Amino acid sequence: MSNSSGEKKHIVTPSLPSGFNEYLPSDQILFNSMIETIRKSYESFGFVPLDTPVIERAEVLLAKSGGDTEKQVYRFTKGDSDLAMRFDLTVPLARYVSLHYGELTFPFRRYHIGRVYRGERPQKGRYREFYQCDIDIVGNGTLSILNDAEIVGVIYQTFKALDLGGFTVMINNRKVLGGFFESFGVTNITEVLRAVDRLDKAGPEAVSKELGELGLSSECIEATLKLVALCGKPSEVIGEIKTWNIDNTLFNEGLSELETVCSAVKGYGVPEDCFKVNLRIARGLDYYTGTVYETFLNDHPELGSICSGGRYDELASNYTNQKLPGVGIAIGLSRLFSQLKESGLLRGTERSSVTDVLVVPMDDCLDYALKTASAMRRRGYSVETYLNGGKMAKKMGYADKLGIPFVLVCGESERDDGTVTVKNMATGEQKTVPIDPENGLNLSFLSEI
Amino acid sequence: MSNSSGEKKHIVTPSLPSGFNEYLPSDQILFNSMIETIRKSYESFGFVPLDTPVIERAEVLLAKSGGDTEKQVYRFTKGDSDLAMRFDLTVPLARYVSLHYGELTFPFRRYHIGRVYRGERPQKGRYREFYQCDIDIVGNGTLSILNDAEIVGVIYQTFKALDLGGFTVMINNRKVLGGFFESFGVTNITEVLRAVDRLDKAGPEAVSKELGELGLSSECIEATLKLVALCGKPSEVIGEIKTWNIDNTLFNEGLSELETVCSAVKGYGVPEDCFKVNLRIARGLDYYTGTVYETFLNDHPELGSICSGGRYDELASNYTNQKLPGVGIAIGLSRLFSQLKESGLLRGTERSSVTDVLVVPMDDCLDYALKTASAMRRRGYSVETYLNGGKMAKKMGYADKLGIPFVLVCGESERDDGTVTVKNMATGEQKTVPIDPENGLNLSFLSEI
Repeated sequence: MSNSSGEKKHIVTPSLPSGFNEYLPSDQILFNSMIETIRKSYESFGFVPLDTPVIERAEVLLAKSGGDTEKQVYRFTKGDSDLAMRFDLTVPLARYVSLHYGELTFPFRRYHIGRVYRGERPQKGRYREFYQCDIDIVGNGTLSILNDAEIVGVIYQTFKALDLGGFTVMINNRKVLGGFFESFGVTNITEVLRAVDRLDKAGPEAVSKELGELGLSSECIEATLKLVALCGKPSEVIGEIKTWNIDNTLFNEGLSELETVCSAVKGYGVPEDCFKVNLRIARGLDYYTGTVYETFLNDHPELGSICSGGRYDELASNYTNQKLPGVGIAIGLSRLFSQLKESGLLRGTERSSVTDVLVVPMDDCLDYALKTASAMRRRGYSVETYLNGGKMAKKMGYADKLGIPFVLVCGESERDDGTVTVKNMATGEQKTVPIDPENGLNLSFLSEI
Repeated sequence: MSNSSGEKKHIVTPSLPSGFNEYLPSDQILFNSMIETIRKSYESFGFVPLDTPVIERAEVLLAKSGGDTEKQVYRFTKGDSDLAMRFDLTVPLARYVSLHYGELTFPFRRYHIGRVYRGERPQKGRYREFYQCDIDIVGNGTLSILNDAEIVGVIYQTFKALDLGGFTVMINNRKVLGGFFESFGVTNITEVLRAVDRLDKAGPEAVSKELGELGLSSECIEATLKLVALCGKPSEVIGEIKTWNIDNTLFNEGLSELETVCSAVKGYGVPEDCFKVNLRIARGLDYYTGTVYETFLNDHPELGSICSGGRYDELASNYTNQKLPGVGIAIGLSRLFSQLKESGLLRGTERSSVTDVLVVPMDDCLDYALKTASAMRRRGYSVETYLNGGKMAKKMGYADKLGIPFVLVCGESERDDGTVTVKNMATGEQKTVPIDPENGLNLSFLSEI
């Protein structure tokens, strides 16, 4: 190819950076419909939208973290500024609540659907830029434990609306785990919980070995494995664990919280078989201090937890002296979408278009066609007019390839008679029906043919 | 503040980087409702959503640009990768269409609502991270001029839906301008058009002087100022300009395109007073080759163009040898929002909440309250349950501060009678009405009180 001065033009390969991802229209439409479902569910519980900058001051973003997180962060300087791209939506929330503390009303309930960035080693379904869909409820000083039950209600309603098949919300309480280990005199609880968290991946033997290396007695290891095997109906699990008569304040506080949460969850209409207490759920982060959540698809446990979170005592201690306890969850939507697609679990018609009706003007009937299209738009339909040249077969082929369900032909005879010819692209059926584009259309024919 | 080991904790100031912006909930809700209006309008014309990565390979993003753009770009390395953040949504579109050429159906109609990044000097209302709302129609080889008319239809419907008061879409055609200057033997047309583009800001004298410095004869300068003063009803402006009998192929091609577009625009229901031909519109970019658009609020011309764009011959010549002509527009939403707010032009109630109803459980009526809230959610309301402690005045104060319109009190007497007490927060009116939370509610009382 030559440009105007006759030189050979340099063509740059239009590829994406490694680990980055984008969708073709059909997947983008499905992905957006999932976001829309999640958004509506979050808003139905009165969570307000938030949208913080993707770039933050590196000092702010990395106030707490270290090690792995820091290595994965996209960090750069621009002018004098040391900047970094957010790697989750929780640190920006902490920063936001601290910065706007005086202007917010507490409990502050926000949702945030946005992209985060992690320079991880690219793997199948794991991207360096991905969507998270978070909700958090942040209290000022205190926050009732009942909010922990509400989160289960939100998870239930959201995944019911997403229609991905049966799922189970598993909850636990870190105080139960912490108190349990405290009663055995174990002090390195964070490390112990991290080892327990690997039970599914590493198996009981490896974890036992690791717990031994962390200094746990064999009696304690045995009790631990018995504890983390408990999973089931809240009343049964809590009943069982009560018979162990563990005399530890933290443990009993956690157990009481767990009971309160499980009892309140019923009010949210969560069916019994969608909700379990699972003593194995620990969440690796040292961040959580009470209730923790994970969510699994019943028929696809191999996907891992598709919605996780928990209660934390201090959201923003790096930015403020205010005590801001909270509880929240995140859905890693990009990864979930990729897994669902891989497993053939995505519902909804695959279409490359949002258009309901393609209007095709014939001969010199453009004006009639445009008015017909505008009238249908006013009735809430998504309507495209085929404005480009070519034979009828090409125009029908366009509708067909994109999955547009109806084609409306506006030719001379239609214009003169005040009609349109409608073709149902799925059945091939065709019908000429009267319309009145100036005064609104009777569109019942779309469901008739 | 001390952490668990008793050390003094370091508090990081939770500020944003200079030039970055975020909203408090009330503004975020308004901003999102504008995005939603734009999205719906774009989709009603059958544009499909697209969402490309914020980060691209620097080589790709900077294939064409140079000078100012390059200086403003956020560019950094991560590992071996030379990366950059997108500074508009058009270059990513060009890259996308080139990369997925074989998988797309043309004309390819997409909208993209997303953030772009420019390290400009921060100014009032100008951010380094801001939203753009773009549509483009990209043809494969050719693209009918009728698509240029459709874009006016989309602008009209979108700004009508945004309800910002009277507005005018101004159109012009670069070929008319180009042919006009060609007929005077002017060859440095890009520079000349850039000077003309500054007419509003710099005034006719400064522009005349600049045109003189660019080598234009005084006769040509005089004719230029006469040309660019033409602005009005399409038929009148085009009629006037035809009497000039300029004998130039490009000029007459442009004029004929302008006529075709103006005639087709009527079919989109655009009222005559919303649409003008304005020979002054040039758009500074050398990028555009035909129709160009700008849009102004009638009562606030000082805001400048709030929606601009045009026709280009080759979208993606940096990435592919395919000829991909297109036409599109962009709304710079973050800046527009800031200007509208500043000018007091934002419609809609300012609320810090999306909640319709706050349900307040009294005494031990939590379960009754939760069931009532769930039933209302199933009816499509956004419902929050006040789950935290405190006196009634505090709970009412919470609803009041957030602008929640209704509070439902569920106490013992209500539960026993199967009623709720509803308070209209605007009028203070209060009423006890029967409900049936298990079997769905009669919610007509919300409009009654």
